[in-house]
Amino acid sequence: MNPIQDLQQRIDDAFGRIQFPAHPADLYDPITYTLGLGGKRLRPLLVLSSCQMFGGDTSDAINPAIGIELFHNFTLLHDDIMDEAPLRRGKETVYKKWNSNVAILAGDTMFAIANKFMLRTRSQAISQVVELFNQTAIEVCEGQQYDMDYEKRQDITIAEYIEMIRLKTAVLLAASLKTGAIIAGAGAADCDYIYQFGINIGLAFQLKDDLLDVFGIQEKFGKVSGGDIIAGKKTYLYLKVLESAGQHGEYFRKLYASHDMESSEKVTKVKEIFNQMNIEQHTRKLIDEYYQKALNELSCISLSSEATDSLKEYTEGLMEREN
Amino acid sequence: MNPIQDLQQRIDDAFGRIQFPAHPADLYDPITYTLGLGGKRLRPLLVLSSCQMFGGDTSDAINPAIGIELFHNFTLLHDDIMDEAPLRRGKETVYKKWNSNVAILAGDTMFAIANKFMLRTRSQAISQVVELFNQTAIEVCEGQQYDMDYEKRQDITIAEYIEMIRLKTAVLLAASLKTGAIIAGAGAADCDYIYQFGINIGLAFQLKDDLLDVFGIQEKFGKVSGGDIIAGKKTYLYLKVLESAGQHGEYFRKLYASHDMESSEKVTKVKEIFNQMNIEQHTRKLIDEYYQKALNELSCISLSSEATDSLKEYTEGLMEREN
Repeated sequence: MNPIQDLQQRIDDAFGRIQFPAHPADLYDPITYTLGLGGKRLRPLLVLSSCQMFGGDTSDAINPAIGIELFHNFTLLHDDIMDEAPLRRGKETVYKKWNSNVAILAGDTMFAIANKFMLRTRSQAISQVVELFNQTAIEVCEGQQYDMDYEKRQDITIAEYIEMIRLKTAVLLAASLKTGAIIAGAGAADCDYIYQFGINIGLAFQLKDDLLDVFGIQEKFGKVSGGDIIAGKKTYLYLKVLESAGQHGEYFRKLYASHDMESSEKVTKVKEIFNQMNIEQHTRKLIDEYYQKALNELSCISLSSEATDSLKEYTEGLMEREN
Repeated sequence: MNPIQDLQQRIDDAFGRIQFPAHPADLYDPITYTLGLGGKRLRPLLVLSSCQMFGGDTSDAINPAIGIELFHNFTLLHDDIMDEAPLRRGKETVYKKWNSNVAILAGDTMFAIANKFMLRTRSQAISQVVELFNQTAIEVCEGQQYDMDYEKRQDITIAEYIEMIRLKTAVLLAASLKTGAIIAGAGAADCDYIYQFGINIGLAFQLKDDLLDVFGIQEKFGKVSGGDIIAGKKTYLYLKVLESAGQHGEYFRKLYASHDMESSEKVTKVKEIFNQMNIEQHTRKLIDEYYQKALNELSCISLSSEATDSLKEYTEGLMEREN
């Protein structure tokens, strides 16, 4: 097993050991169900590998790592209510399988349980870890609010979109990395560098998600290509067209917002415009800019480049996916 | 100003100083609105007076006191969605004034902010304070779930009802008191006594609420008498009738669940049965039992009776209200 696989195994084992009470069933069954849906467990992996990179004891980091994943799953539970999402990882969402009230309350409980997990670390690190965790939670909520606000607004700038995905997605990846660093006892400057690495990696990941939704290689059983286009989601790709099209953007705006035509026809038409305007290339360029910024932050850390290699390789692997 | 009024003033001042960001407006406006609705601020007062009673510095306790009140208001925000409550303290609830999504997300944010406030205390107390806070949060969620479960069940026992109100109401009052004690550096036994005092006071308060809803002296602009009866809420009074009536309870069960007749007629009929079965006396007796248990716990605390007098007088005042 390579170091990353080893950490992944430890995270899976730790999740396997979590036991929730049997009652009240409508509170704890949805939590068990949600965690059973799996997921990449990316955030706990970032906590542990950052802790390891800075020479910390990963046993001090495993509980906060779980806490962050519990928090992430709680946000999905509540987001699915707000977004009226019927499916999550191919299975019914909690609010569909049970109801909204169950999803609200199970989510609240997960957030409280997450906070308890955050406390189980080196006593000198507790205050900083829990402060960062809850500050990040606030920012994630802000990101979700902006995301919902932007559904209704027609004048979103690219800068506003980037700020929204920074809050909604990047800060939690950054906080995961910084949590590992704090627990390892890294210095303030290094904590800041690894946090900024996380922000830039997070932005690159989200933009890559936006890109692959349209230009990804379709998996056999994967997502339908163009889901964002069908839903009319205002992604970077969409905003980049409008930015470049100027006043000629009205046709595109209407096309993108439309729900009148066949999905596949809409996707084809929108992709044509994306192609005409080199949107894929623009997006890949921006992704690479954020990725280079991330690597630059990583290189500022007061560790040998060998020490940072494992994290670098891991994130590179995630960046290279094309589906 | 007496000591309690002095603490109340400090709590009001501290709330007055809280400033939330302006954006996103749909996230922070509902929080400001909710806190602006006021309330007795009972829980922060319990934090501060317990801290003071155990000889602690109340400046160490003011932020956790605010954190607990923020948490309490967050639970009301989410409960109002689940209970479809249109009004709270005479004003529109957040989910009515905005919508459910706003109420969900503003609530989540308040819980995160509350956790940040909990951290701002003596460094030696942080871990215990935050652990207790989140454990209590979990229990409050369990209480809310049982409350919703019991709406659908016909076979609730009095013991189950008491356990539900313990979780939904009493544990937060108990945790408020214990938080003050922890911050003051009280010993483990005293922390436990003050917690049990809080549990018993909390049960007595909730039963008094149940009682006053039916038998309270009506205020000029107060709540409508018999709101629980009209809603068919399964309170102690209701369960006590069923317990005593045995198999003859079916008529009462149907009457209580009915939504067919005029509200005032339903209230009158239910009250007649309450009167026939001495339910008011039974309830007052149980309230007094919990109150005496509470005082007994208080007397076990390793402080002079003079030291505990202020808290005793304050809770006595709350117990004596008849509207």
